[in-house]
Amino acid sequence: MGRLTGGDPSLLRRINSAVVLHSLRDAGDLTLTDLTRITGLSRPTVEGVVEGLIETGLVVESAPAEGEARKQGRPARRFRFRAEAGHLLGIEIGPHRVAALISGLDGRIIGAGSRVVSETADADERLDRVRLVVADVLRRTGVSRGSLRAVGVGSPGIVEADGTVRLGTALPQWTGLPLGERLRRSFRCPVLVENDANAAAVAEQWKGAAIDSDDIVFVLAGLSPGAGALIGGRLHRGFGGAAGEIGALHLLGRGATPETLLSTTDEPLHPLDEQAVAKVFADAKGGDVRAQEAVERFIERLVHDVAALVLALDPELVVIGGWAAGLDGVLDPLRDELSRFCLRPPLVALSLLGEAAVATGALRLALDHVEEQLFAVEGTVTARR
Amino acid sequence: MGRLTGGDPSLLRRINSAVVLHSLRDAGDLTLTDLTRITGLSRPTVEGVVEGLIETGLVVESAPAEGEARKQGRPARRFRFRAEAGHLLGIEIGPHRVAALISGLDGRIIGAGSRVVSETADADERLDRVRLVVADVLRRTGVSRGSLRAVGVGSPGIVEADGTVRLGTALPQWTGLPLGERLRRSFRCPVLVENDANAAAVAEQWKGAAIDSDDIVFVLAGLSPGAGALIGGRLHRGFGGAAGEIGALHLLGRGATPETLLSTTDEPLHPLDEQAVAKVFADAKGGDVRAQEAVERFIERLVHDVAALVLALDPELVVIGGWAAGLDGVLDPLRDELSRFCLRPPLVALSLLGEAAVATGALRLALDHVEEQLFAVEGTVTARR
Repeated sequence: MGRLTGGDPSLLRRINSAVVLHSLRDAGDLTLTDLTRITGLSRPTVEGVVEGLIETGLVVESAPAEGEARKQGRPARRFRFRAEAGHLLGIEIGPHRVAALISGLDGRIIGAGSRVVSETADADERLDRVRLVVADVLRRTGVSRGSLRAVGVGSPGIVEADGTVRLGTALPQWTGLPLGERLRRSFRCPVLVENDANAAAVAEQWKGAAIDSDDIVFVLAGLSPGAGALIGGRLHRGFGGAAGEIGALHLLGRGATPETLLSTTDEPLHPLDEQAVAKVFADAKGGDVRAQEAVERFIERLVHDVAALVLALDPELVVIGGWAAGLDGVLDPLRDELSRFCLRPPLVALSLLGEAAVATGALRLALDHVEEQLFAVEGTVTARR
Repeated sequence: MGRLTGGDPSLLRRINSAVVLHSLRDAGDLTLTDLTRITGLSRPTVEGVVEGLIETGLVVESAPAEGEARKQGRPARRFRFRAEAGHLLGIEIGPHRVAALISGLDGRIIGAGSRVVSETADADERLDRVRLVVADVLRRTGVSRGSLRAVGVGSPGIVEADGTVRLGTALPQWTGLPLGERLRRSFRCPVLVENDANAAAVAEQWKGAAIDSDDIVFVLAGLSPGAGALIGGRLHRGFGGAAGEIGALHLLGRGATPETLLSTTDEPLHPLDEQAVAKVFADAKGGDVRAQEAVERFIERLVHDVAALVLALDPELVVIGGWAAGLDGVLDPLRDELSRFCLRPPLVALSLLGEAAVATGALRLALDHVEEQLFAVEGTVTARR
């Protein structure tokens, strides 16, 4: 706070620059007069700032619009934010596939790619597959690697701030993997690694089912459930990055694991065997009593998980994603049970982004990182979006 | 952000005034030269600001220290923050007692009082009791009612932002009670009502077991458990103020209520019957097998509640308060079980404030409110101690 009283001219210059860039990004083409009006800055200040932004490549003079040239006199120069001045990648590394999305600095997605990967693939093989997908996406969009400003990565597990996977049982060799460090070798820009459910929560708020809410829980429902939460619009990672890793609640007391719950035989299902799970749900629909009982047990457990999250966090909205989101009959019992047991039942919605949620969230996190550099100045706060 | 670029002189004056007041509160007696050095402001600015603060009564010239007068020349004038320029109340309204604490603007407690109240007392009777305790505390400390700057209140239930109890089953006639409005009739200052577990969480971080942590869960353990959480040092109330109301998790599935769990007969215990509960724990210690089993069931359920909170929120520290905190044998099994089931087990500690936690937290919330007015200026952020 004391800093703001000192009248530091370079801080003021940075603030002014961020304000002008913000206006150009949000409003599209603007004249110097427009910018003076919107920002409240003086004409000479705006001229100086715009000149500086043109030098960095973040702003460019737009071509005069049709008709402008026909008006009398010289048309006012217009300027626009150069979204193409840099690019961002969002990467998902999952048990069965790796995927990547690419965007410009405005977050608009301009390319995507994915490859299947075996759930038994070791870390080297899985990361090779990531590199292939990335190279492919860059090649097809014609974006040079040097244009990347940040890379976001979503992956199962508890992830440390430096991108090391502290615990990740869903993928072979994942626990202890310095995932951020390994991927940084392929890029000359920051690489940010995030838990997959956390990334998906961010994505659903950005372009999915949670656009209107700042207080959400995203449940990556499946045999090994995880969750991500936004509180007041900000990702809640927890003190050690383990927030929302609700799966262990099953292990308490006499609780069965979901693998056992969904099994219609005496053998538990494999945690990642989506085909087997889909078959149980299909059988249940077809009238198989044992399968119906298994589905009931599974939903009961999902309700319990979600209820624990809801009672602890009290979100406005719960978004259900992961493969369970594609299965009929999960949402209604969930709503009913939450209404019965929660003092203030939240809204419940299905993921709108589906399979794309994790990579989309990873991209948004990369974009947040870059926007922080472009628009935020030490000691000031900018609204998100 | 744009606002900071405009050079609004009255905003600058308010910032400068807050900076000077902050320095005086934190550092004690200071000369104008000290203030110039600490704040980076010019001498004339500091002089003008200090003069304004003296006019408001928040700052006073200190008496010269012994010895100062003996030095040659006129000693430099020293100034101090007047903690006695205003006062704050922290009130607990519980099932069995009401209590109040009073402090000056520095948060140092200068008086306390409490009265028992019957758990069957209706809302009018309970509020009458509160007024008696408050009048008593004011009289004994010689503080006039007009000197109160804010009143904080901690009470069971889900509390709306305006101080209405949305749901409060622990106290008769509590659900729907416009508690804030009712109490505001007794005071000419803001009255802030908060859930009791939330208030206790704030208190433990202020002066209790959680001084060193910003990410804590406080569990008000008892037959009807509640919890409060601080995330990054800020109270997490949830979207509808219901965060941490984990008690309902018992009702899911086949779970028994804690009243049943702790009963050694076929009759459930009364939810608020602390004597009966203490007897069960004492009997268990004395070797009574039925009581031992009851205690085991109770602890198992407490572990489950706390685990749900820990998995959802991933705090650094869990503080156990409420009457269960006074009972032997709760902490060790809790630590053991959390280590087994949580991916990143938190530290577990007992409340240091005990019975005083709720009123202390209520006082802190009142102090926060006043400090926001004194030290924070629109568009600036002040660190919380």
